[in-house]
Amino acid sequence: MIEAAVVSIETEIQRIFAASRLRATDYGEHYVALWDAIERASAGGKRLRPALVLAAYSGFGGREPAMAVPLAASFELLHTAFVIHDDLIDNDLTRRGVPNVAGSFAARAERRGASAAQAGAWAKTGAILAGDLALSTAHRTVATLPVDPETRLRLFDLLERSVFISAAGELADVTNTLDQASLDVTAVLATLENKTAVYSFEAPLQAGAVLAGGPTDALDVLGRYGRLIGVAFQLVDDSLGVFGDPDTTGKSTLADLREGKQTAIIAHARTTDAWPRISPYIGKADLDQSEADLVRAHLRACGAAQAAEDLAWRYADLAIDALRSPAIPGDLRDGLVELAERAVQRCH
Amino acid sequence: MIEAAVVSIETEIQRIFAASRLRATDYGEHYVALWDAIERASAGGKRLRPALVLAAYSGFGGREPAMAVPLAASFELLHTAFVIHDDLIDNDLTRRGVPNVAGSFAARAERRGASAAQAGAWAKTGAILAGDLALSTAHRTVATLPVDPETRLRLFDLLERSVFISAAGELADVTNTLDQASLDVTAVLATLENKTAVYSFEAPLQAGAVLAGGPTDALDVLGRYGRLIGVAFQLVDDSLGVFGDPDTTGKSTLADLREGKQTAIIAHARTTDAWPRISPYIGKADLDQSEADLVRAHLRACGAAQAAEDLAWRYADLAIDALRSPAIPGDLRDGLVELAERAVQRCH
Repeated sequence: MIEAAVVSIETEIQRIFAASRLRATDYGEHYVALWDAIERASAGGKRLRPALVLAAYSGFGGREPAMAVPLAASFELLHTAFVIHDDLIDNDLTRRGVPNVAGSFAARAERRGASAAQAGAWAKTGAILAGDLALSTAHRTVATLPVDPETRLRLFDLLERSVFISAAGELADVTNTLDQASLDVTAVLATLENKTAVYSFEAPLQAGAVLAGGPTDALDVLGRYGRLIGVAFQLVDDSLGVFGDPDTTGKSTLADLREGKQTAIIAHARTTDAWPRISPYIGKADLDQSEADLVRAHLRACGAAQAAEDLAWRYADLAIDALRSPAIPGDLRDGLVELAERAVQRCH
Repeated sequence: MIEAAVVSIETEIQRIFAASRLRATDYGEHYVALWDAIERASAGGKRLRPALVLAAYSGFGGREPAMAVPLAASFELLHTAFVIHDDLIDNDLTRRGVPNVAGSFAARAERRGASAAQAGAWAKTGAILAGDLALSTAHRTVATLPVDPETRLRLFDLLERSVFISAAGELADVTNTLDQASLDVTAVLATLENKTAVYSFEAPLQAGAVLAGGPTDALDVLGRYGRLIGVAFQLVDDSLGVFGDPDTTGKSTLADLREGKQTAIIAHARTTDAWPRISPYIGKADLDQSEADLVRAHLRACGAAQAAEDLAWRYADLAIDALRSPAIPGDLRDGLVELAERAVQRCH
């Protein structure tokens, strides 16, 4: 069922955007272009969040894709909203190598002869409105599910909690970066959990289970698994951001170092004797490839790279342990164990 | 009932923010400060949108403030979200003479020793997240109303339509300002209607009527009245922005001229022989008080000031005419006629 439903997710998301684009035509070409840009921002991802909603839903016996698919799509739209606004916060004009909402609006303005300042102002406007529209659409999709009042309330609590906690995590993340704060590993992990793990893993799994009428103790287990595996995923992403293969990940291995991103690797390195040789390069805006190679060698030699990888495995193991509860049906457990293992095996 | 309910609105909004602030304490002082800033952004307004929801609700026989008050609060939260994001789009750090979300976060950063660039980045982050949180809270408030599925769907359609159309209006408004487009009066009015009249007047009135079970033909009348009176309000606001008394309005009478804001006054002036004497000052960033006095004299002499005022009266008259329908109960009509008259009498 899951595979068929993942196909349905694409169809559902396309349906939502097609309806919005049609309505947008009443308001001029720029507004249509804005909706096109939102749809592009939503495309090309792995649809991880919808897949988690559907896995939990069918795991607890849910058999109505017409209910689960819109709920799953709403978590993808929530992710789209966050991605658009995060990019604006980070002043990024591209994502996965292509122009994002702000980037495509800046280019559009320049094609129309705008100055750089005008293009920047228009790009910002587009990105703010695009994120708002994606966020509103995510909420509407949940609000219009034909479910009983109690289920609706619980689903909305999960959605609202996702927004609330990820905003807290994003604010903390930006604050730490601006402060160039010397975070310890615990603080790094708390930020990862709030900013990403809750809305990307915990809430989608719980939402799928709630929709299927899963038992309360299962929700607690899924929440714990979700937060742990979400942190493991982010730890691996952060390692790949420094040591990965850009051809595989699609991400530069310079950006995080240049930005001085506060990762578990950096937090660990800070506790070692090698730190004085590493710290001058962390947050160095013009770090070049040979300097980056040097930093990577130091980060490996001092044990920080291995420590972050070990931590990811430990979180994945804890996540798998959390599933050893009679509240979790066997098929769902097998699928989530496999997901956890795949998450950390990306290290290699 | 309305007066008591308007008091309840304040209580309801305070309750919503108190609950959020309490939850925010788990995520550190900055996140609490962000919620405080959102609450301040929501305070001090006239609560016009909630009052319209309540007027329509009781006008159609609604008698349960416990239902109408949260719905009314949600339109105020929607307004708060738009105000926060509009200020960010306009690079404004104050509203009504006090620091807004971005302004208070910039000041907070500077008190902590941040550079101007860091303070700006933090202010932007705060404003983006604050608007998202207000928007999400507005949706959640509607989603959790204990109403039947059809009513919920209709209320959510009104909320979502408000976001959709005001985003279109905001994008058009920013585009026109950046382009220094030579708008005619019709284009000015369309932007006012989309950006403000729909979410501020049409949707709150219709939402109140829907919640009370008002008839379909009444919704059409309220929609027409709302769009017309919303445009009249904005026309008067735009006139006060040039000719008003800053002590009364709390608004500078230089800002709109300096920005080159595309108003009905400017659109009319552009069609007159006086335009060559006016246009050099429209959008002049360093316009001073004596230049502004000169422009005001030209705008009066060429008839543009009077034309905009006449247009506001015409829209108010049309709005009042629209209410002459048997679908609108007498008490509600009386209240809305009074509102329309008050709107345009602010000219003087």
